[in-house]
Amino acid sequence: MESQYKSGSNIGGLESGEKEVAIANKRKMRGWDFVLRFLALGLSLAAAVVLGVNKEKTTVPVSLVPTMPPVNVPVTAKWHYLSAFVFFVVANAIACAHAAISLVLSLASVSGKKGISMVIIFFDLVMVALLFSGVGAALAIGLMGYKGNSHVGWKKVCNAFDKFCDQAAAAISLSTVAALLFFLLVVLAALNLHKKH
Amino acid sequence: MESQYKSGSNIGGLESGEKEVAIANKRKMRGWDFVLRFLALGLSLAAAVVLGVNKEKTTVPVSLVPTMPPVNVPVTAKWHYLSAFVFFVVANAIACAHAAISLVLSLASVSGKKGISMVIIFFDLVMVALLFSGVGAALAIGLMGYKGNSHVGWKKVCNAFDKFCDQAAAAISLSTVAALLFFLLVVLAALNLHKKH
Repeated sequence: MESQYKSGSNIGGLESGEKEVAIANKRKMRGWDFVLRFLALGLSLAAAVVLGVNKEKTTVPVSLVPTMPPVNVPVTAKWHYLSAFVFFVVANAIACAHAAISLVLSLASVSGKKGISMVIIFFDLVMVALLFSGVGAALAIGLMGYKGNSHVGWKKVCNAFDKFCDQAAAAISLSTVAALLFFLLVVLAALNLHKKH
Repeated sequence: MESQYKSGSNIGGLESGEKEVAIANKRKMRGWDFVLRFLALGLSLAAAVVLGVNKEKTTVPVSLVPTMPPVNVPVTAKWHYLSAFVFFVVANAIACAHAAISLVLSLASVSGKKGISMVIIFFDLVMVALLFSGVGAALAIGLMGYKGNSHVGWKKVCNAFDKFCDQAAAAISLSTVAALLFFLLVVLAALNLHKKH
């Protein structure tokens, strides 16, 4: 993109020439960067929505008196009951918003300007950190819900809330792929800068 | 570093000239990259050790029969009881090993070679992802131990294991700074490539 800008100015050295090159480059911008960014947008949005609408009502048998048969008590699991899941949804929403904005900037070919291109790479890197910490937090709590831990006396809850846990696992998987895509975007940007150097 | 390699080969075009430039550059390499990498090594090592030696024995009053006074039961908290903490220690150990190896490569001026320099940047980025996910996982479990969660019936354990929790909090803080340093190393490398471009 930038090299083409340069060649444009070398040939004509005119603003109109640069604009023509910029318009012509719009199609080329629909390359890997566009595909990866679009996928990252979709996956982080899906991850935020899948966990953000996660809710399950069920009944759990509780024995109030040992001699009496257990009573079925209605219980509800909601995503915002766990702070790790709240962080996960917020992180994915931010990543989705960043992907959307950077996609628009890429399509508008504004990213051809060096400064904006570097700002996008910087925020791609921020998204790597944000999404991986979100995935780490949600996975830690999710695994605790799935397995429980006898040492700290935290019982597994996924036997009661199977649908809720499946949906959480799906959201975490989606977000992991989104995080890897942002990782790949940073790697490709670095390789691009390296190649041009 | 790379540009100086280039100027060396421009002037002499000889391997000995390049070697002289490489030796002369050793001092210059003790710049920001060296300082940040060294700090990241120390902090990730400290984080792994602080959590890796974390162990606390205490007694918890347990009332076996409601009419009788509670009995003090000895309990132990160890870092490897929680899989999130195991992941955290392993992640920090890997980051520490990477920092040490990359530091040696930087000091030996081998990083002047384009390929190795890019490999170091790539693994710096891997460390960003690894450490942030480790911090996210450990923080999620740590906060659960500190606050508990009434919705899933997980009681807080930090009231009994105050020393254990303080040490875990210290390790998480150290690792967060190490993760931010690796983040900064990637940003500086990108800016460096951008500047040279």
